[in-house]
Amino acid sequence: MKINAYAAKHAKDILKPFSYDSKSLSEFDVLVKITHCGVCHTDLHFLDNDMGITPYPFVPGHEVVGTVEETGKSVKNLKKGQRVGIGWQIGACLECEYCESGQENLCANSKATCVGNYGGFADYITVDNRFAFAIPEEIESENAGPLLCGGITVYSPFKLYNVKPNHKVGIIGIGGLGHFAVQFAASMGCEVTAFSTSPDKEEEAHNLGADKFVNSKDAAQMQKTAGKFDYIISTVSGDADWMPYFNALKPNGRLNFAGISLNNVSVPISGLVLGQKSLSGSVTGGRAMIREMLEFAARHDIKAMTEVMPVSQVNAAIDKVRKNQARYRMVVKMD
Amino acid sequence: MKINAYAAKHAKDILKPFSYDSKSLSEFDVLVKITHCGVCHTDLHFLDNDMGITPYPFVPGHEVVGTVEETGKSVKNLKKGQRVGIGWQIGACLECEYCESGQENLCANSKATCVGNYGGFADYITVDNRFAFAIPEEIESENAGPLLCGGITVYSPFKLYNVKPNHKVGIIGIGGLGHFAVQFAASMGCEVTAFSTSPDKEEEAHNLGADKFVNSKDAAQMQKTAGKFDYIISTVSGDADWMPYFNALKPNGRLNFAGISLNNVSVPISGLVLGQKSLSGSVTGGRAMIREMLEFAARHDIKAMTEVMPVSQVNAAIDKVRKNQARYRMVVKMD
Repeated sequence: MKINAYAAKHAKDILKPFSYDSKSLSEFDVLVKITHCGVCHTDLHFLDNDMGITPYPFVPGHEVVGTVEETGKSVKNLKKGQRVGIGWQIGACLECEYCESGQENLCANSKATCVGNYGGFADYITVDNRFAFAIPEEIESENAGPLLCGGITVYSPFKLYNVKPNHKVGIIGIGGLGHFAVQFAASMGCEVTAFSTSPDKEEEAHNLGADKFVNSKDAAQMQKTAGKFDYIISTVSGDADWMPYFNALKPNGRLNFAGISLNNVSVPISGLVLGQKSLSGSVTGGRAMIREMLEFAARHDIKAMTEVMPVSQVNAAIDKVRKNQARYRMVVKMD
Repeated sequence: MKINAYAAKHAKDILKPFSYDSKSLSEFDVLVKITHCGVCHTDLHFLDNDMGITPYPFVPGHEVVGTVEETGKSVKNLKKGQRVGIGWQIGACLECEYCESGQENLCANSKATCVGNYGGFADYITVDNRFAFAIPEEIESENAGPLLCGGITVYSPFKLYNVKPNHKVGIIGIGGLGHFAVQFAASMGCEVTAFSTSPDKEEEAHNLGADKFVNSKDAAQMQKTAGKFDYIISTVSGDADWMPYFNALKPNGRLNFAGISLNNVSVPISGLVLGQKSLSGSVTGGRAMIREMLEFAARHDIKAMTEVMPVSQVNAAIDKVRKNQARYRMVVKMD
């Protein structure tokens, strides 16, 4: 069987139709007929070969929604016709200390959906069923895909770093990841401040659940945030002046990076020590946490705000992400 | 009553005899007759006015051991003749969210023993009894003082950051703080690696409880540590190349600064994210944690290895700290 996808042949190329032979199903695999796939900023990092490790042809896409079409012989928990979502990861050793403790996202042998494998901008994909997740009925297909990557990426650190309902939480960047973070933080009971360089996002930030909005380009507004936050999460993939955010932390506060900026963050050691502060990163989440996140999202009506375009316009969708014009996640729909 | 102390009149001055009138005891105060006082690197930071906030005349010393000589009328838990220790802090508001939760060390109105107050290189000191701690019998006076600052400084982050007995722990710097950190980590059941620029400390590091020793000037040895540690604590007050330590962390690993270096630490955001790592700082500990630390130290025979000099030679003692010649903590003994 031929799988019809969209691929780039070299760095920064536009995507063009590309087909490849599907592999035969091994015992734990499922063949999924894709209906939707989100466009994540990480797709652009790999498309542009920012890390120098992209294999070409490169078929992006790792926020996949579709239905199970065929199951390998050891697949027990999914059946034909069932709706599933697939995120960044489609494999892990399942034997190391991280896998055994439900942190497959940290497995050294993690296998990515679209790096070293052809991704979700395609009509079908074959994946290990242990990394395909049933999607709760309440969540529409066009809003579900981005939860599997963008959603878990910001949900996970709230749990990992023990953010509490009484905490004052700042969200840097109200985009694909940030608009999830605002919803999760508000649903967890936190006081939520949205930091954005786009003042026109203020109303929507409030609609998503933000209590406060700070224009991060306004130095006076930023200065007023000093010493106010227990937890700040950066969801942006560009650079920023991190010091105002570091200064915005209370004693014991944490600045966590969920978005990958390509440069360094530099802070005074005396500030870390005297404020007893933390800087950290977090990377997606394990399988149990993905299921928990989906259940939480369904219960709190948390979903991706998406703009849907047909897959034939995938380059235009990517372009909107590149220009920060997505409100808030671009999703391509298969024919 | 006149208190006889040793003071610097300006930055980097040598200490000379200096006397001042003792204040009258307020209700919670105790007058302590000092027998010993440790020399901490923070005394040197303030002596040199590294932070630009030192008031002169400056009487250093905040690792005080002595006996209660007189008690204010509301002092209930200490009595005349009792041996006590005093560390970095001698006051806090006792009403803010940090004080109420046993984190007086984070109180914005924290009062320091030797900044804005005349410190412990003196024959007497008057302090709020709520910041004077009974010293367990098992601990000799000449080994106790440094526990109150250096000891709590490295004990506290093990608790704060949830270091576990199975963890692989690295200690950067085997000096005043580091020689405590090795003892605490070993007594908590951790696998302990000592990182030092002084290969001649290897044998003593093992005697203190280190399982392994790495010469941090040896790039080949450092490279072999990549990805091995759950927790690394820096106890040094100088600069270092922090990247090899950042790279030495496992996924979920933390590099914590307990020593104050005056410059920045800079790490790649992608490394924080993909390794789900943390950088942090920690600053001494609250009163309950100081009492817990003293009890733990007594039970595990953890103490300062000290070199004791008479207070009349306080400048020579300071000089040995400055030249990293202390093995491992200089203590001055009052006449």
